[in-house]
Amino acid sequence: MTIKVGVIGTGNIGADHVTRLSSQVVGSTVTAVFDVDTARAEQVAASAGAVARGSALEVIDDPGVDAVVIASPGDLHAEQVLACIAAQKPVLCEKPLATTATDCLKVIEAEVATGRRWIQVGFMRRYDPGYKVVKDAVDDGTIGEALLAHMIHRNAVVPDSFTSPMAMTDSVVHEIDVTRWLFGQEIVRTTVVPTKPSPLAAAHVRDPQIVLLELAGGGVVTVEVFVNCQYGYDVRCEVVGSTGVVTLDNPSANVLVRHGRRAQTVPADWRVRFGATYLTELQEWITGLRSGVVGGPSAWDGYAATAVAECAVASLDSGAPVPVGLVERPGLYV
Amino acid sequence: MTIKVGVIGTGNIGADHVTRLSSQVVGSTVTAVFDVDTARAEQVAASAGAVARGSALEVIDDPGVDAVVIASPGDLHAEQVLACIAAQKPVLCEKPLATTATDCLKVIEAEVATGRRWIQVGFMRRYDPGYKVVKDAVDDGTIGEALLAHMIHRNAVVPDSFTSPMAMTDSVVHEIDVTRWLFGQEIVRTTVVPTKPSPLAAAHVRDPQIVLLELAGGGVVTVEVFVNCQYGYDVRCEVVGSTGVVTLDNPSANVLVRHGRRAQTVPADWRVRFGATYLTELQEWITGLRSGVVGGPSAWDGYAATAVAECAVASLDSGAPVPVGLVERPGLYV
Amino acid sequence: MTIKVGVIGTGNIGADHVTRLSSQVVGSTVTAVFDVDTARAEQVAASAGAVARGSALEVIDDPGVDAVVIASPGDLHAEQVLACIAAQKPVLCEKPLATTATDCLKVIEAEVATGRRWIQVGFMRRYDPGYKVVKDAVDDGTIGEALLAHMIHRNAVVPDSFTSPMAMTDSVVHEIDVTRWLFGQEIVRTTVVPTKPSPLAAAHVRDPQIVLLELAGGGVVTVEVFVNCQYGYDVRCEVVGSTGVVTLDNPSANVLVRHGRRAQTVPADWRVRFGATYLTELQEWITGLRSGVVGGPSAWDGYAATAVAECAVASLDSGAPVPVGLVERPGLYV
Amino acid sequence: MTIKVGVIGTGNIGADHVTRLSSQVVGSTVTAVFDVDTARAEQVAASAGAVARGSALEVIDDPGVDAVVIASPGDLHAEQVLACIAAQKPVLCEKPLATTATDCLKVIEAEVATGRRWIQVGFMRRYDPGYKVVKDAVDDGTIGEALLAHMIHRNAVVPDSFTSPMAMTDSVVHEIDVTRWLFGQEIVRTTVVPTKPSPLAAAHVRDPQIVLLELAGGGVVTVEVFVNCQYGYDVRCEVVGSTGVVTLDNPSANVLVRHGRRAQTVPADWRVRFGATYLTELQEWITGLRSGVVGGPSAWDGYAATAVAECAVASLDSGAPVPVGLVERPGLYV
Ligand SMILES: [Mg+2]
Ligand SMILES: [Mg+2]
Ligand SMILES: [Mg+2]
Ligand SMILES: [Mg+2]
Repeated sequence: MTIKVGVIGTGNIGADHVTRLSSQVVGSTVTAVFDVDTARAEQVAASAGAVARGSALEVIDDPGVDAVVIASPGDLHAEQVLACIAAQKPVLCEKPLATTATDCLKVIEAEVATGRRWIQVGFMRRYDPGYKVVKDAVDDGTIGEALLAHMIHRNAVVPDSFTSPMAMTDSVVHEIDVTRWLFGQEIVRTTVVPTKPSPLAAAHVRDPQIVLLELAGGGVVTVEVFVNCQYGYDVRCEVVGSTGVVTLDNPSANVLVRHGRRAQTVPADWRVRFGATYLTELQEWITGLRSGVVGGPSAWDGYAATAVAECAVASLDSGAPVPVGLVERPGLYV
Repeated sequence: MTIKVGVIGTGNIGADHVTRLSSQVVGSTVTAVFDVDTARAEQVAASAGAVARGSALEVIDDPGVDAVVIASPGDLHAEQVLACIAAQKPVLCEKPLATTATDCLKVIEAEVATGRRWIQVGFMRRYDPGYKVVKDAVDDGTIGEALLAHMIHRNAVVPDSFTSPMAMTDSVVHEIDVTRWLFGQEIVRTTVVPTKPSPLAAAHVRDPQIVLLELAGGGVVTVEVFVNCQYGYDVRCEVVGSTGVVTLDNPSANVLVRHGRRAQTVPADWRVRFGATYLTELQEWITGLRSGVVGGPSAWDGYAATAVAECAVASLDSGAPVPVGLVERPGLYV
Repeated sequence: MTIKVGVIGTGNIGADHVTRLSSQVVGSTVTAVFDVDTARAEQVAASAGAVARGSALEVIDDPGVDAVVIASPGDLHAEQVLACIAAQKPVLCEKPLATTATDCLKVIEAEVATGRRWIQVGFMRRYDPGYKVVKDAVDDGTIGEALLAHMIHRNAVVPDSFTSPMAMTDSVVHEIDVTRWLFGQEIVRTTVVPTKPSPLAAAHVRDPQIVLLELAGGGVVTVEVFVNCQYGYDVRCEVVGSTGVVTLDNPSANVLVRHGRRAQTVPADWRVRFGATYLTELQEWITGLRSGVVGGPSAWDGYAATAVAECAVASLDSGAPVPVGLVERPGLYV
Repeated sequence: MTIKVGVIGTGNIGADHVTRLSSQVVGSTVTAVFDVDTARAEQVAASAGAVARGSALEVIDDPGVDAVVIASPGDLHAEQVLACIAAQKPVLCEKPLATTATDCLKVIEAEVATGRRWIQVGFMRRYDPGYKVVKDAVDDGTIGEALLAHMIHRNAVVPDSFTSPMAMTDSVVHEIDVTRWLFGQEIVRTTVVPTKPSPLAAAHVRDPQIVLLELAGGGVVTVEVFVNCQYGYDVRCEVVGSTGVVTLDNPSANVLVRHGRRAQTVPADWRVRFGATYLTELQEWITGLRSGVVGGPSAWDGYAATAVAECAVASLDSGAPVPVGLVERPGLYV
């Protein structure tokens, strides 16, 4: 059985997903796409033997579409996901599930009303082999009891359109999800610690920033986000347990020795670092759908991540710790 | 277009290939298999929705088979590859192409007679990302002019059936191919240097062994092969150029700190180390076939590797350097 | 000229200093020692050809003593340092200079009154080659402008007598000094973030702890202190600049590969990690004294470190950020 | 007791030794020096408060000299060492002990005739902490039984005066000594394998070269020597045992991350890499002399190293393996 996928949004990540689903994932084709940039949509559609539709809804309601990938701007996600639920079509929604916790709850309410899961949220790091090693070491007691963690999330540069809150909602949101997943606990409080901005960051952007994530079980995770670090894309993680430590660094097999230096390459960007991870994510999504199963990060995970990121933005403004108040978790997500 | 593949030999590597071609490679299905172990063949066939045939020839001649993978014992390869050429079906033949250089030449003669390539030999390391980084650094001048290399090939343990010559024909044959590929030169002389055997190796096996491969251009490659190293599967490579050095080590992203040690995991075996590499090899083979193209390591590469390995076995017996005499390379392989 | 040193306190670090000064440092001998444990003092004195005196004051006032090392319990330091100043003898005082900022100020007042420096405080990390590489990279612009840093300070285990505040005054005090030294700025605020205790820490000790050090220039340093990490002594540092990053990890030249792991050794304790660093510290102290110069970390550095550690202890109790209020820096220390 | 040292030869290494012995080693002073470059000798003498003498013999016979360091050109070593024995003064002779095995034997004969050891040969690597870790792992069974080893010895560049045989007598001689020391066995055969020269090496120099050292116990050591590698000084060692492997790489504690690379520094030259090792060597020599003990690498070690290097030079000329014939080891050196 081949899953016919419709893709909404054909920007960088959407176009990559179209390529993967049409030519690298087993068991899927792409049949329909939509983008507000019609020419772009036509081009991407042509590359995959798909049809460009006139709207997101047309993609969702297309009888030739079995499942939907949403890679549109974040503020459109909630409405599009709700449409997928209404159409009873499984949907892989890039983060965020919605830009506000309130909107996330509307999505959750709609999904819960159907009595089953339709939504997977695109927190792809859970599919990365390196993160899986960390997760296993935490789960199987290799490091004793996990107590705290340190995470780093650096990008070489960001466009001028990037804002200080986006460091929370677009960047740290990954660490928020990773934290919840690794520890198996909710985040109960978050603090953004004011720090000195880089002279190479845009004047309107606080960068770098340090964020503290406090867990229900008492542990604390420190996150450094630095989106203008200049040198590359550098995502790292160190979980500290009661008897040992497990770390994740950039994967590497090669060393180049020249000019007095033994050097390993730092990935240029997230497409280099996590390209294969996205492919695993999509393959597992499609493999699941072929068996009638929706798994992976749920709408609840999307809601929790958005709620914590919202608190981080509030803390960024106030300078004070902000408690995270989540609703009770519906049974569907337990 | 889906390529219907017949797989001959369903031992470990053959069965892995069936799984990959039926469920992980895009554009392929497995329709027929054969193994002398009939029960095994039936089981593997069932897992892939394929049919178990009564002989290798039946697989090759099956009208429902577009292309063939040969993973049978090495001494059967030549005959089976010749049958594929006769049947005008593309074939991916696990190494060796044939167990003697003479038999390899018969295969080459048959392929050349058809005027086109049908054969790819399974030197999968050329598809490994780490080896590609080394190859690129050699080719683009990053390390200046490549002068020599050091290679290590260690296995934790081998079965009792393993013999000293097999270290050349089954293990070092990979370094032989990698050497020819990295340097873009033929090997002209090979020497096996007698060394002290491990007390943990079987009494009839010389292990470890050191092999010198001399290139047409004057460079030398040292190879250590050690198939009872106990600790894991450890394949490494260091190419020394006139201005720099590039190395390949076991890929790693994680460190585990416990009990006074910061440790990275060494792969347990070649399936762990090169599993993803085999998948890339098969995917590129199938993608090529879908466009009517046969590429990758050729019958010539298979012949040269067997010829050099033969000389290494001769040197192992004599203790002296053994010159490698290759026939002239047919135009098909230039 | 040989500097005749008197050593007060012959516990572990004091006895090590006696050995170094008597047999490893050029230009020094040890002539007098004191310890409340008379037998111990006699034994250590004998090992160095020195005399055990009846009190700290007797050592300080001994005409055969040119300079003094104080390695007694911290609450005795202020009084002993004051006696050295009174006796006009250079003194190397192990941290802390005094246990309260108030007492540090009394020492500073006494030293300033003499119009010259007598005191070096034993912040030995400034003499470690790895820290010097970090310092150089910060100072010479190699990483652009230093913005923030992450530091880790872990011990395998601590004795039962260890308390939560001691994590600040005995352990983090090193990171406090390193931070001030690396950034060339004072710390203006410190926060201890409550986190989950290790089940292997004593019930009365909060461990691990996370500390935030905010610099006058706006930068922030995160410090993790974990004195029951079980696996070894692990001190690390990563300074993040506007164009690059410099890190310090445990020095290592060897890898041991066994049992499926490539492993580097983590130092067992601070004597292993910083033994050579202490020797460099003492050698530079003696070399300076032979030229009539007192340099290294000053009484001001000792005061500032104690003041910040005091605020960290206050924050540990209150859970709130605590501003650091330093007096104006006397001209002697500019 | 202070050992008064006379230093013969005040070129780079001799001058460094004068500095170390006069100001960094405990228990020694430098009282006399000699160099054919009189001005240089005067300058170095002045820096250490020593006197420049008119000849090597004057230094050796100086009643104010207790022990001698020989850092003169290698072809003068034998005669000067013999003079030290005649004068009954302990001598630390930089390698080689003599430039021919025959001359080494004359020295041995003279020393044996006195019934005790006077000579230590300057194979300083035995004092390097990294090599000691390797030695310990070999000796204590950590890697099982040591079977073979791979060694690399690279220099960035060499002066025009450097010749192909010097790669054996000046560079590989260190690996020869390390091999004998690590394995506790004599080398019985050596082969220089012709390889492709670097275009950046002088026309008259074969560089790089590969050398095989075969041990009495059957093991083999591969050595790559490359004295124009351009990028730095890179000395490495990997000993392969029956159950594990121990490696030595350039010591490092720091990583610098910039411009897309995580980099460790390669030492610029041997003074950077082994500066501290020379100091340890001299300190242990002096400490021994103060107790009346001469230890460290013996005249026998110097003889064996020269004998093996001679065979390597012969093999370099002939291209064939050259057996090493050592005389019987005198009881003094057992
Ligand atoms: Mg697909
Ligand atoms: Mg397939
Ligand atoms: Mg001394
Ligand atoms: Mg001295």
